[in-house]
Parts: sequence; structure tokens; C-alpha cells
Amino acid sequence: MTSPYGLHRVREPEGVLPQQAWRLDPDPTPGADEVVVDVERLNLDAASFRQLREEHGDGAAVRAAVLGIVAERGKMQNPVTGSGGMLLGTVRAVGPDSPLGLAVGDRIATLVSLTLTPLRITDGLANWDGTSEQVPCAGTAVLFGRSIAAKLPGDLPDGLALSVLDVCGAPALTARVVRRKHAELGRAPRVCVLGGGGKSGSLSLAAARRAGAGELVALVPFQREADAVREAGLADEIVIADARNPVEVANAVGKQADVTVVCVDVPGCEHGAVLATADGGTVIFFSMATSFAAAALGAEGLAADVEMLVGNGFVPGHADYALDLVRTEAGVRALFEAREPAAADS
Amino acid sequence: MTSPYGLHRVREPEGVLPQQAWRLDPDPTPGADEVVVDVERLNLDAASFRQLREEHGDGAAVRAAVLGIVAERGKMQNPVTGSGGMLLGTVRAVGPDSPLGLAVGDRIATLVSLTLTPLRITDGLANWDGTSEQVPCAGTAVLFGRSIAAKLPGDLPDGLALSVLDVCGAPALTARVVRRKHAELGRAPRVCVLGGGGKSGSLSLAAARRAGAGELVALVPFQREADAVREAGLADEIVIADARNPVEVANAVGKQADVTVVCVDVPGCEHGAVLATADGGTVIFFSMATSFAAAALGAEGLAADVEMLVGNGFVPGHADYALDLVRTEAGVRALFEAREPAAADS
Repeated sequence: MTSPYGLHRVREPEGVLPQQAWRLDPDPTPGADEVVVDVERLNLDAASFRQLREEHGDGAAVRAAVLGIVAERGKMQNPVTGSGGMLLGTVRAVGPDSPLGLAVGDRIATLVSLTLTPLRITDGLANWDGTSEQVPCAGTAVLFGRSIAAKLPGDLPDGLALSVLDVCGAPALTARVVRRKHAELGRAPRVCVLGGGGKSGSLSLAAARRAGAGELVALVPFQREADAVREAGLADEIVIADARNPVEVANAVGKQADVTVVCVDVPGCEHGAVLATADGGTVIFFSMATSFAAAALGAEGLAADVEMLVGNGFVPGHADYALDLVRTEAGVRALFEAREPAAADS
Repeated sequence: MTSPYGLHRVREPEGVLPQQAWRLDPDPTPGADEVVVDVERLNLDAASFRQLREEHGDGAAVRAAVLGIVAERGKMQNPVTGSGGMLLGTVRAVGPDSPLGLAVGDRIATLVSLTLTPLRITDGLANWDGTSEQVPCAGTAVLFGRSIAAKLPGDLPDGLALSVLDVCGAPALTARVVRRKHAELGRAPRVCVLGGGGKSGSLSLAAARRAGAGELVALVPFQREADAVREAGLADEIVIADARNPVEVANAVGKQADVTVVCVDVPGCEHGAVLATADGGTVIFFSMATSFAAAALGAEGLAADVEMLVGNGFVPGHADYALDLVRTEAGVRALFEAREPAAADS
């Protein structure tokens, strides 16, 4: 019998979930509730790709490293960062009991991490030069009963859609928290997005606006990014500061926010986020570089009565919500298109 | 002008928060919003004391090392572990603008870390032999406007009070979340505490009950601990499982909880906590062994729509609330007294 969590695909060690497993079984024969996908492209997580490049340097060595990981583990999970990415492909086979609503021939992107997706590569990544996190790839992947996949929209370029889907949890959760804060406070909340010029940051700004944010503050590292966010019309106040410097962040943000969203993918932004947030406010950490201990001890050390959320990448309806933001908010779309589709989230 | 965060006490490097600073100014003259304390005892953080003993070996050398750190840094922050501890003392002077509500002569324990507390030692630690993390000490410490200190209650032994204050953030935040969930759901929430037999776990169980929890589930690792929790009357259901094994946790808990509280101080409990929690539910992570990435990617990988909170150690009123629980809940007090007062939280 198959498990909706994919327990039956775990080979080593037995009894753990696929994400914790060292090795999965990537056999492309679908179980009763599984879907098998012909892979077209892998989208490596930015932290993982950076680590691979730093460790292996040149493109061919990076390619060999990815092939080695997938051959050994049956999934693309960077053993150093623990992170993965997502993939794009076409549905090849659907088990009779699959609840995902997919049909053979559907073009999809997976919204569950590569860290738990059984994967087999069949072309030796011959079409990838190892210098970009977008990896052209032939092979197969398996989706479980509880996996999540989004059908690629016909009206947006693939690169743009993938780039949006990669960070689609952030705008949906931001919108939910802003709506709740609005109801709690009985007024439109002040919202601050650290890293407001990046992918998840610009989507979060647009989502916050739509969900009823009052003043909307974008904090960015450089003048150039400030200009881009201003041009896109995404925020009421745009401030420049190093998100890793708590005092600088607090001074730049000024009046504390009711909701602070952390989209800066570098370590050390926890204390600045806490200082930027009013007592009774909420911080949402989307950056995978967040340190749990720094957040917990930082808030305690500052006697800050702030709620701190681990940014869960799954909120029901998140993919459609994010794609709709990009369709309808010209400023967000312009920011995405100005980036290389393969650009890292900042 | 003084800063409520103590920025004016930072000597090196300038512009960072006291916790990040290399050196603080420990001058025992209170600023307008400061409080100066005559120190009676330092309680070194367990990780820090272990490191000092391993590096320096014998008691006199450990004592010399602590004296050296405090003389050089103006605070007791172990340069290797980065951790500190807390202190116990008597209020010596109160600045005119201090918001802490303390008076000269109050016996207090600090609830902010020694890593950010300006400290001067005046007795050469003559009464400490360097072999215990409890350090009798004469000297002075400084509290800022935003520091937190608890008056030691006259009706509880110091050791018991310190042991409770050490984990007092957990019950206060648990109570807040349970009350909110009750209002959201319109019914008494099902609450599960992983590690319900430990210090923060038993307090969280008692707090959840008082805040209106419906069924209350304690998950513990051993039969002995299950018996102790049953004896103390803290839960409706007591189940035994290894919190690091997600499948075992899910099976043991059975019906998923609306609120899951993680008080198990070992790595690897994130996925079990997510699996134990119903969609729409909340997980509160109090364990400092929590991995941010494991929590974020785990929930996403399981397509679990759960809210995940970083357990902030500060909630207004947390100290009084926890002390009151121990006073009025005989079962909790019995569990605390059965432990060595100086024992680590499990």
C-alpha cells in the first residue's frame, strides 16, 4: 500500500519521512495514488546552488556534483544546505487513486521541495553547463498523494511562471497575516517588507496592499533597488539599510510596523526584524537563512512582545494567488521580468 | 541620553546591540532609565560552563577564566559558546525614569541573558571554587529600560523559583495561543504537548488547561515519565513515543491537535509536531534545538496548512503567571520538586 506522505518510497533509513531520508526509491512506476512526471527542468534552490558553486567552482564540477547527489540519494537534496528546489515537467502516468486532479499530458511545476521528490536523471544533464540554477534535464519524478503541483498557466511564459511559483507561499501567508492583523487592530496595519525588491519581497508587498495594509514600507539594500521598487509603485515608503544591522534597520524604518516580512536571504536579519516591529506585532520569516535561536533569543533579549512565524511555504490556493498578482500588478511583473528568470531571490 | 536597549553601554564595536557587542561599559552609575543591582549569584548557562571546564580543567583556572572574561568584556558572555546565563541579586539604585517597577532592596532574578547585561565583579569570586555553574559573586549589574527582571517571591524557595523563571515564557505563550484558538474555532481546542513531563512541558500543560483546552495530550519518551505526568494529573491522554520519529508521533497522538507545543530539547522533532497538528492548527516551538529550515520545509513537504510559531521567551506577565501556576497546581510543583532544582530542562 502507498502512503500519501511517500513513506513507501523511503529506502534509508527506514521509517522516516521522505525529506529526512538519505535515500529514496525513484522507480518511475506509479503507485495507486502517485503521479509520475517526465522532467523537463530542475530549478535549484538559491542557497543550494550558491553552496555547490562555492564548493566546486567550475560548471562541469557543479554538474558532476548534482548528478552524484541524485544518483546516490534518489532525490536532489544538497547534503550541506539540506535544501532542494522544484521541477517542471509533463505528467506521464497517473495512478488510479491519485487525488491531485492531474491528467497525462498536463504541464506542471512541483510545489513540494525536491528534497522529498523521488528523481531519476537520464540524460547526464548534457544540456546544462552548471552555471545557472535553472537545469535543463531529462528524467522522471514521482508525486505522492499529499504532494502539490501547479498546472502551468497558458498565458504566462514558463520562466516567469516558475519564478513566481518558486516563492508563492510568501504572498499568500503575508495576505493572511495582514488580514488577521487588520481585524485584530481594527485599522489598516503598517507593514514593512525587508528585501522588498526581491521576488518574494515584491510579491509580498503587492499581497499586503491587496489584503488591506495601511502604510507599506519597503527596505532594500541599494539605491538602484530603491529606484526599481519606486518605479513599480509597490510601497509608500522606500528606505535603504543593511538588513543585518539592527540599529540601522530600526532607524530606517522609523515608526515600528504591525507586520514585518523578512525576505532577505542572508543570515543575521532576525534582530533588525524584531526591532522594526511594534509590540503586539508579527514577524514572518520567509528567509531560509533564518536562525531559530537568534530569533527566539533576540526577541527575549529585547523584551519584545512580537509574534514570530516560521514562513510555511504551503497555504491553500497559494499558486493561483501569486500568479494572479503577477497578471494584474504591472509593477510586480516588471520587477520579475527585469531579473534574469534564473536570478536568485534576494 | 540612554537607550532602552542599552545601546549607550556598547563600547566595542559601536552601533551594535549589547548582545552582539564585544565590550560593554559596566559602570554602576544608573542612567535615567536604568536599574543597578548588587549581585549575589551568577547562574552560568550549562553550555558555557561545560566549555569552560573542558578548556581550563581545574577550578581555580575556571575561576580565573570567568574573571578574565568579565574584566575584558564588561559582561559574562562565553566567547566560544556565545551564551551567558542569568543572575540573582538585590536592587541597589533605580534611575528616575526606569519603567521596570523595581524598588531599592527588591530581591530579583534577571530574565534577560547575561550576554547583554553590563557586569562588574568586585570580590575576585573568592567564594566560588570554580566547580559548579552556580557562582556566589559580589559585584554590580545594570538593567536597561527594556530589560526584564522578576522579583523573587517570598513564599517559594529560591531554587524552585529560579527553576520556574528559567522557562516561564512557555506557559504564558501557550495560554495566549490556546485562548486565541478557542475563540477562532468556537470550541475548546485539542492540545498536545511534546515533552509534557519536562519543566516547560508540565507548565505548558497546566497553562493550556487553565486557558480552556479541551482534550489535553502529553507525549513523553518513557513509561516512568508517563507515570509521573499521570500522577500529577496534568493531561487527559498520556502517550509514549520518540518525538524525533514523525510516524511514531502521529500514530501515538491519533486525532490531530489544534495546538501542538514542542518542549523536547533534542533536534529532529519538527516533522512529528507538524504531523500531529490538524490543518488550520498551530505549532509552538519552544525547543532551542528547533531547526528553522526543517520546520519550514517540513510543513511545505507535507502540504500541511499549519501556523508555526518561534517560541518567544518574552510575554508580558510571564514570570508571575508561571510562579502562580507552580503555587496553585500541586501536580506541577511536585514534578519540579522531584527534579534537582539545578537540573537542565528536558
